[in-house]
Amino acid sequence: MIKEGKNVSGERLSRIVDFCRLADREKFISRRTYLTDGERLENDAEHAWHLAIMALLLHEYANEDVDLLKVISIVLIHDLVEIYAGDTFAYDQDGLKTQKERENAAADRLFTQLPEDLAAKIRHLWDEFEADETPEAHFAHTLDNFQPMMLQAATDGRAWREGGRKLSEVLKRNSRTAEGSSALWNFAIANFISPQLEKGHLTKDTEIATYPKKR
Amino acid sequence: MIKEGKNVSGERLSRIVDFCRLADREKFISRRTYLTDGERLENDAEHAWHLAIMALLLHEYANEDVDLLKVISIVLIHDLVEIYAGDTFAYDQDGLKTQKERENAAADRLFTQLPEDLAAKIRHLWDEFEADETPEAHFAHTLDNFQPMMLQAATDGRAWREGGRKLSEVLKRNSRTAEGSSALWNFAIANFISPQLEKGHLTKDTEIATYPKKR
Repeated sequence: MIKEGKNVSGERLSRIVDFCRLADREKFISRRTYLTDGERLENDAEHAWHLAIMALLLHEYANEDVDLLKVISIVLIHDLVEIYAGDTFAYDQDGLKTQKERENAAADRLFTQLPEDLAAKIRHLWDEFEADETPEAHFAHTLDNFQPMMLQAATDGRAWREGGRKLSEVLKRNSRTAEGSSALWNFAIANFISPQLEKGHLTKDTEIATYPKKR
Repeated sequence: MIKEGKNVSGERLSRIVDFCRLADREKFISRRTYLTDGERLENDAEHAWHLAIMALLLHEYANEDVDLLKVISIVLIHDLVEIYAGDTFAYDQDGLKTQKERENAAADRLFTQLPEDLAAKIRHLWDEFEADETPEAHFAHTLDNFQPMMLQAATDGRAWREGGRKLSEVLKRNSRTAEGSSALWNFAIANFISPQLEKGHLTKDTEIATYPKKR
């Protein structure tokens, strides 16, 4: 805590503000999900804000006790690397192959622009999300999958229809969604996926009942 | 905490998800600040995300110790009422007169759509922001003023130039910015306001040195 009158290093503050200005670019990175108006695609910053609000309102549904500040911090920063690495579409198999490498390089380049202690802190949050081994990371991933399905359902599956998506693809993407919250995954099956399947907006090429796979 | 296997009320979860879907509309509410590309105006959701990231990175500069989770929660939800009340431009004197009344009515209508306990929690956070009496509310307001000035400086004062803004108007809007963080206010004077003033992008109709007024 830096108090009034204390010797504040102007260089430190300048570096943090430079980073905050750079973060503005996340608003220009488009995702493949339509907003509830069914017209405009969501951008990364809007997505991250939505996940953070949803963490605040839905964390009681996490399977395990979660540190809410950590969950929110993770979802706020989880897509920052896309400023350099770009968004990788969840159904782009070629892009997914190089995603890890591209995003690691982006993280190295991006976070080191912060003062060392903050760089380490943000890098640790991002590594935790990527490793997906803690209750907080599990729940962050659950939200990261649940929110776009909520928007799909709100737009009558527009992006699924346009992409000609199959149920097996959606289930593969969600193979670990239940790890963070069984309640949210079951809600998503009943309210987001099944209705779109019944309308034929998702091709039924497998059975829902087989997911999530037991680990 | 609701565990796996426990009796989860589907109605409660449905109400929260309905609210999360409604919150999507915040992405359609335009502000008057240009993003760093100098072309597109920022929307409320992007703004809230930016403030939350900045809270995470800049809270050490708050004048008083702050509960970071509370600051972040406040900035995440602080503009939700605009879903019903619309954005009130900070320099729209007529709009500002009715802002409090319109936003209170919007808060009544909006937050009560959540289950009672969550409605009370979010309402309390919003009331705390509006009352602006706690260290967390002070710092949230500081960020709410600091972030658009950062974007102004990044776009060479475009919105200030287009609005024909005077220094006195900017100082009036920022009359309490230093309460949350003297360091950020001093940084803003030196790096955001003064350079634009020197370039004539803000009309110099008063002296900066008189702000902030002693309280």
